[in-house]
Formats: sequence, C-alpha cells, structure tokens
Amino acid sequence: MEKSESTNIEMGESSKLERKLGKAPLLGSPTHAISSSAIVANKRAGNYKRGIAIFDLILRIAAVATAIGAAVGMGTAGETLPFFTQFFQFEAGYDDLPTFQFFVIAMAIVFAYLVLSIPFSIVCIARSHVVAPRLLLIIFDTAIVTLTTSAAGASTAIVYLAHNGNEDANWLAFCNQFGDFCQTTSGAVVAGFLTVVILLILIVLSAIALKRH
Amino acid sequence: MEKSESTNIEMGESSKLERKLGKAPLLGSPTHAISSSAIVANKRAGNYKRGIAIFDLILRIAAVATAIGAAVGMGTAGETLPFFTQFFQFEAGYDDLPTFQFFVIAMAIVFAYLVLSIPFSIVCIARSHVVAPRLLLIIFDTAIVTLTTSAAGASTAIVYLAHNGNEDANWLAFCNQFGDFCQTTSGAVVAGFLTVVILLILIVLSAIALKRH
Repeated sequence: MEKSESTNIEMGESSKLERKLGKAPLLGSPTHAISSSAIVANKRAGNYKRGIAIFDLILRIAAVATAIGAAVGMGTAGETLPFFTQFFQFEAGYDDLPTFQFFVIAMAIVFAYLVLSIPFSIVCIARSHVVAPRLLLIIFDTAIVTLTTSAAGASTAIVYLAHNGNEDANWLAFCNQFGDFCQTTSGAVVAGFLTVVILLILIVLSAIALKRH
Repeated sequence: MEKSESTNIEMGESSKLERKLGKAPLLGSPTHAISSSAIVANKRAGNYKRGIAIFDLILRIAAVATAIGAAVGMGTAGETLPFFTQFFQFEAGYDDLPTFQFFVIAMAIVFAYLVLSIPFSIVCIARSHVVAPRLLLIIFDTAIVTLTTSAAGASTAIVYLAHNGNEDANWLAFCNQFGDFCQTTSGAVVAGFLTVVILLILIVLSAIALKRH
C-alpha cells in the first residue's frame, strides 16, 4: 500500500512538472501517456470509492434508526392485564426475560457505536483514498454485527417460545394472554434483524472499497 | 485495481528488459532505482499476503473442526431418565426444541461452507496477488458468521432457560433432571461461539489482506 501510494504521488508530481514545463515534449510521449492515463484511472477509482462512502453513510444513518427503534421498541414493551388469577402475575415487561434485557443493552451499544462511526464514514467520503478509517470501520462493523445478531437470534428464540411454547419442556406460550407485549417484542426483533442486514451490506461495501484501492 | 496491476506488469517487463540489456545504464538511474525498489516492495507485500493466506487456511481448518463438533455435539445430545412420572416425558433430545434443530442445521451448513471454502483459501496462497477469491471469501464469511451467531445466540437463550428457567413466564428449568443433556448442549453452544470467533478473525485477516493490495 505504501508503495502504490508513493508511486501515485510520484506520478502526480511528474505531471505537475510537465504542466509547468508546458507539456514538455522532451520528456518522451510514452511516459507522459502512461502517467496521464494512470491519473484518469485514479480519479475514476476515487469517484467510485466516494460513491461507496456516501452510500455507506446513508446506510449507517438507516442502521442508527433501526437500532434505536429496536432498543426503544423492546424497552417500552410491557402490558398489564386488567384481571388476575392466583397462578399468573398479569404484568409483562421486557425486564421479566433476561434475553430481552440483553437485547435492549446490545441494541443500545449498537446504536452508540453507529453514531460514533458516522464521523469516520464522513472522513471516508472526504478522503476516499485513505485506507485506515475504512479498515477500522470494517473491523468494528464485523464485531458489532456479531453482537446484533446474537441479541436478535436469542430474542427470536424467546419470542418463538412465547408464541408457540414447548410441550416437551412444559413451557407454555403466553402470547394468548399478552398479545400486545408479544407483538411489540416481535417488532423489535424484526428491527434488530434489519440492523443486521444493513450492517452486512456495510461490511461488503467496505470490502469492495478496500479492494479498489 | 486494474490500474495498479497494469503498472506492476509494466514495471516487471521493464525490469526484464533491463536484465536483457545487462542493467543498461543508458535507461537512466532514477527510473531504474524506482522500479527495482517497487519490485522489492511488491515481493515483500506478496510474502506478507501469502503469510496471511496460510494463516487463513489453518484457521479455516480449525473452524471446520469446531463447526462439526458443535453440530455433532448438539445432534447426539439426548438423555433418557430411568424413571417417569405423570407430568414429564423423561426423554430429552435436541429435536424436542426447535432452536436446537436450527442450531444443528445451521452448523451443518457452516461446516459444508467451510469445507467448500478451503480450495479458495488455497488459491489465495498460490496466487496471493489475486483479489477475486479473497473478496468472495470475505463476503461469504460475513454471511456465514451471521448464520453461526444467530444459531449460537438462539441456543444460548434456550440453554440459559433450561438452566435457570423463568419465574415470570412460568417456565421451569429442566437441567436438574436432564443434567447430561444440558451439559452436552452447553458444550455445543460453546463450540458454536468458538466458530464465530474464528470466522471473525478470518474476516479481519481478509480485510487486511485486501488492504495490502
């Protein structure tokens, strides 16, 4: 990478020199042709990477929205039934189930990370040839996609249990009683998986942008 | 990328020419110095990427082992108790819980993918400057890490329930009765998370190898 950057700089400088010398024909036409075509290719690759970086920023803002939606949706899920019996406590909240608590915490972390990553994404737009922020983004995005997926996957398992129960383990479904609670948590899980999908696209885009260097 | 490759090839050809001409001093020493230092840098980057590719292959084989361990561990988990009552069916198997079935299927898919990806990893060792197989690997690794994490996360939620139960939802823990079953499934989940960690390292390595291009 240092090598290709140094050759690029060297090409840029020689072309400046040529411009100063008034397209100096003495320098030999083959070298001149090569360096100018390299500059054109470089500029085209730069535009391409800038496009990817802008798309990256838009997707990142969308992921911020889905992550906060998932966290808030799950965090505010709760339902109190207007009647009670001796067997059931007729109040359901996300903090009754540790998995849903984990989901809320994980989504809050994902939200915070995504907000903090936006400046790096903007740096990638402004300086599309710089590799370090993009590499940082791809590494942390990969870590965060794992956190998001584990939270969404675990909550899916619990939501599935809440809807269908499990006869073999003698776990009863409670969505007949707590319909609103189940719908809200299901919606939050869907928002969590939307975040996963957006993060996956972000990682693939970053990999493609790294490749075009 | 095409640009830098074409310049590399051009440099390589000019150095061959120079060799044919017996280090032809007429070509001018600055050009010669630049192209030979570029060749050295190129060779060093090639060695670096070959090292990453070999490490990638080793990690991939390790991930094959953990994935098949997780799938087989969960698939063979089962316990029949030597006594029975009227409330419980005293036979536990992975197919009693849909989440564990999903885990076995997902881990089998991950195992199959990892085995199929080994040839691509070998191509990356043999031709360390080729970008296409590495980009393919990073994209599919990212997809597979999501599948693995969702399976492992979902199974963790169920294993946690099996160990601790949940009073609010009236779901009772069954690990007191089915201790062996719970231990085997917990081990399988740990193997699943080991696969996730190895896949994460693989993605970061691929990103670094793409950067060095």
